[in-house]
Amino acid sequence: MAELCTGASGCYQHAIMVPNPVSHHLLRLEVELPLESGQKLVRPAIAYESWGELNATATNAILICHALTGDQYVTGTHPVTGKPGWWTRMVGAGRPIDPARHFIICMNVIGGCMGSEGPASSGPDGTPWGLDFPVITIADMVRAQAAALDALGVGQLLAVVGGSMGGMQALQWAASYPERVRSVVAIATTARHSAQNIAFHEVGRQAILADPQWHGGAYYQHNATPTAGLAVARMTAHITYLSEAGLTAKFGRRLQDRADLSFGFEADFQIESYLRYQGSSFVDRFDANSYLYITRAMDYFDLAAPYDGQLASAFAATKARFCVISFDSDWLYPTAESKTIVQALVAAGRHVSFVEIDSPHGHDSFLLDSPTMYAVVDGFLKAGEGLA
Amino acid sequence: MAELCTGASGCYQHAIMVPNPVSHHLLRLEVELPLESGQKLVRPAIAYESWGELNATATNAILICHALTGDQYVTGTHPVTGKPGWWTRMVGAGRPIDPARHFIICMNVIGGCMGSEGPASSGPDGTPWGLDFPVITIADMVRAQAAALDALGVGQLLAVVGGSMGGMQALQWAASYPERVRSVVAIATTARHSAQNIAFHEVGRQAILADPQWHGGAYYQHNATPTAGLAVARMTAHITYLSEAGLTAKFGRRLQDRADLSFGFEADFQIESYLRYQGSSFVDRFDANSYLYITRAMDYFDLAAPYDGQLASAFAATKARFCVISFDSDWLYPTAESKTIVQALVAAGRHVSFVEIDSPHGHDSFLLDSPTMYAVVDGFLKAGEGLA
Repeated sequence: MAELCTGASGCYQHAIMVPNPVSHHLLRLEVELPLESGQKLVRPAIAYESWGELNATATNAILICHALTGDQYVTGTHPVTGKPGWWTRMVGAGRPIDPARHFIICMNVIGGCMGSEGPASSGPDGTPWGLDFPVITIADMVRAQAAALDALGVGQLLAVVGGSMGGMQALQWAASYPERVRSVVAIATTARHSAQNIAFHEVGRQAILADPQWHGGAYYQHNATPTAGLAVARMTAHITYLSEAGLTAKFGRRLQDRADLSFGFEADFQIESYLRYQGSSFVDRFDANSYLYITRAMDYFDLAAPYDGQLASAFAATKARFCVISFDSDWLYPTAESKTIVQALVAAGRHVSFVEIDSPHGHDSFLLDSPTMYAVVDGFLKAGEGLA
Repeated sequence: MAELCTGASGCYQHAIMVPNPVSHHLLRLEVELPLESGQKLVRPAIAYESWGELNATATNAILICHALTGDQYVTGTHPVTGKPGWWTRMVGAGRPIDPARHFIICMNVIGGCMGSEGPASSGPDGTPWGLDFPVITIADMVRAQAAALDALGVGQLLAVVGGSMGGMQALQWAASYPERVRSVVAIATTARHSAQNIAFHEVGRQAILADPQWHGGAYYQHNATPTAGLAVARMTAHITYLSEAGLTAKFGRRLQDRADLSFGFEADFQIESYLRYQGSSFVDRFDANSYLYITRAMDYFDLAAPYDGQLASAFAATKARFCVISFDSDWLYPTAESKTIVQALVAAGRHVSFVEIDSPHGHDSFLLDSPTMYAVVDGFLKAGEGLA
């Protein structure tokens, strides 16, 4: 079904491979992947990482789904940034998701820029797709993951776990493949993107589109990169990942490397310097067109839409158990969004554990050191395995 | 003290004058205006509008202070946009602020772009100031207003009234000119810009600075305008003026002029179309450099800073009475910021009326049809005049 990359030549993931304990895998789906738009992707590439081993009964596989700017490098050292993976507290020895007992997979979403088929990949004519890449949806991402799991010999998932856009994928899994999922962990997420969510993404997209280095999406061929626009997009989004209280606690009105105001347009305040750093460092690891495509997929996300707006119907076919977690200071996907999910799950007769966690860190809390979150996920997963 | 424009030639305000019932005035302060930066503005121009007549005892003057993107066109028809003024429900016959009994003045802030001295004005060498215009502060804006009132023969103010940045100026008036203000109405505002406030402004500034049409601020000489960057700045800011609930009620996920998703990057959603319109229409009436300067002034605003962080000390010298109004859905300057102001006022022994108003419209509520707000301001002003 698929070419598995074993580290041999021909795996273009090697282009960003550096010595580190993370294994790098690429597979090319030997299928035509149908998309919600009506288009299709022929033999799309899927880049993934895995930890642990699939057991003999193939009952220990956990799929982790990443967020907008995340990728498959959940733990270990990131091959591009050299920094630790994005969920080292969740995944690892003695962690809630543990390679000692789980076969753990995380794939770069289609549309992404860490090896899976996306706008920066070579298209049918051998040049980068650019804006010829089809617009994809969360359901398309999940369909690609399911096909990749087929190729890897993974039928049913012990659990699918994700935060933010990863949580959207986890919920979509239960709707798209109700028989293949035994447990769903959806953290800091929503069942549909709100007007405000769309608005913030639209600002980011307009910043990219306004950058003359974007070249209508064909910047690859122009040896250009719309770094300024992408940085502004990231800065805007980054504010939404934090909380007002968290920003005040961390930065307040403290000045950056100066005793007095400059009366100019330099970064007088620490928060300005921090945001500029967030913007400039992001462009080194992310593709601007991927940002357009993935934000669009998130904006299109409305899990209830195919069910005449009845969210409970999306969960009618699955027997999965659910764990829904929100953070009280998250204003991007606030607790009210999680409650909407929980109400629909209960209405559908599903088992659901819902926890709202106190945290000053806003949406970003799901990536940070939240002992409560890790304890909740640990207990929920163990209960599903008959271990708790 | 000043040249008063009476509609004769030589008043460059005529450049944007169109037939309408609003009178247009420009005066040039015959002073050197000292600035907090240590720089000064020599004979700065101040554009203003006024309604009603100063009474014989000069006790009926009300100064209205405008917000970031506001201007002196409070009521009547705006000469550039052709739309009604921004506070027609607050100012007019039978309104809380009524030309039948008040002499009402509103001035374009220095740094602005509606006739007062700003980065688009001609600098000392005859070319537009651009980034050679000095960075100004809220206190500088107020100092310019006080000098202009001197020129107009207005000593004491019956009231100074403003929302958002206008509220900052109103509070600053009480600190800078404690004897000259009898009443202060501060609506939907704060005594200091928070880290999150600064963050959103910084994103807007970076969007402008990233626009190659900005030309280091000298775009006037290049016959260019950084419209794309300014539009992104406006779009970002506009989201902060609304509320999540308000956006959901007004737009939700409704599509714009289409039955289905486009699977492209057009404005599929109404909220996208609305935001794009907000961005594109804004650039027709606002100067990008003014946006930089005025946001900077707001970010620098910290009324307690000169008093060792003791906000109550800023109000120690005035005998003014205060009316503080917040809106429960305003997350830009939330009620907590108003409560901080109220606590400091009470600690300083000041009379203060505080009202939090229920509204779904977020920060923008102060510009909208809020019968409660108008009733509160009406009662507060009349009480100060012995009429209630």
